[in-house]
Amino acid sequence: MISKATLGRLPRYLAYLKRQDDSVRDISAAVIARGLSLGDVQVRKDLSSVCGSGKPKTGYNRLELISCMENTLGHGCESEAVVVGAGKLGQALLSFGGFREYGIVLKTAFDNAPEKIGGQVLPIEDLPSYCTLHQVEIGILTVPPETAQATAEYMVRAGIRAIWCFSASSLSLPEGISVHYENLALSLAHLRQKTV
Amino acid sequence: MISKATLGRLPRYLAYLKRQDDSVRDISAAVIARGLSLGDVQVRKDLSSVCGSGKPKTGYNRLELISCMENTLGHGCESEAVVVGAGKLGQALLSFGGFREYGIVLKTAFDNAPEKIGGQVLPIEDLPSYCTLHQVEIGILTVPPETAQATAEYMVRAGIRAIWCFSASSLSLPEGISVHYENLALSLAHLRQKTV
Repeated sequence: MISKATLGRLPRYLAYLKRQDDSVRDISAAVIARGLSLGDVQVRKDLSSVCGSGKPKTGYNRLELISCMENTLGHGCESEAVVVGAGKLGQALLSFGGFREYGIVLKTAFDNAPEKIGGQVLPIEDLPSYCTLHQVEIGILTVPPETAQATAEYMVRAGIRAIWCFSASSLSLPEGISVHYENLALSLAHLRQKTV
Repeated sequence: MISKATLGRLPRYLAYLKRQDDSVRDISAAVIARGLSLGDVQVRKDLSSVCGSGKPKTGYNRLELISCMENTLGHGCESEAVVVGAGKLGQALLSFGGFREYGIVLKTAFDNAPEKIGGQVLPIEDLPSYCTLHQVEIGILTVPPETAQATAEYMVRAGIRAIWCFSASSLSLPEGISVHYENLALSLAHLRQKTV
């Protein structure tokens, strides 16, 4: 698995590689590092974790490197994710355009409140059939903490294998299900320490 | 500075300590670890980073430990933070209730769009006077990337010293200003790797 830090730098590498002149056939980690004002060692490590080690003198074939990065970022084979819980945060995530850069499509949310259904928000009962039809394995959980566990279990039964959990609760789920907890309050509290 | 992981466990320790019977005067890291099903070493480290080392046999005075934790979490001396950019994400953060647990009050956002002003959303021109009056040093930046740099500079001039940046951009700010970048797309992309 590629580290989050490396993954986060791939869009910059990709943009850099693409804006080179067509005549640039091969490119080395050192050249990319200079071009982006990054450390030599870091770029070398990043590239090798995505595309193996380059050739001794010439480095990487530029087009091959582009293709490696695009594959890693899921370009051309996007994954779809869904939001479960169409409250303010769920709606905000749904309207956030930045996921495409990382090959993720997010266009549908699910909720159980009739007044929220409509447009991009479907009734929660439709989750299983939607996940099957669209091969969705990633779910974003933004329901209140009280209902988080039951909702997460329902998501898993619907085929979700990875949950990004914004609800302040600790989920107990079958083995093989990945959960990443996003604690917004903690992130802000950690930052506050720097002002004291 | 206390690590983010330790900080994240403090609310649990605090709740545990508070629900003990009044007759419990002293309490050891080992007892707390057992009570919360956490590792002994971890709890010992967490407590010592917040409240120094306990006494050899008895451990910590429970009420002192509670008071240490409350101080670290900023209970009783809350800090106020503001949101700059009252779009969907800004509004979602504004209505999120979880910051209080970490001693942070978030009740006001600023925007330059007249149609967004009203209620908890004030005109951006009011930011400097608001920050001075309420001693605000923490700002959450949720404007579009194109205006992030100029907005961040304005926030710094208004007295903000720590910025939680949700805008996909890299800020260049004076020394001494802390910036924490929140890349939501990257977090989701990192999680997706676990489904492949």
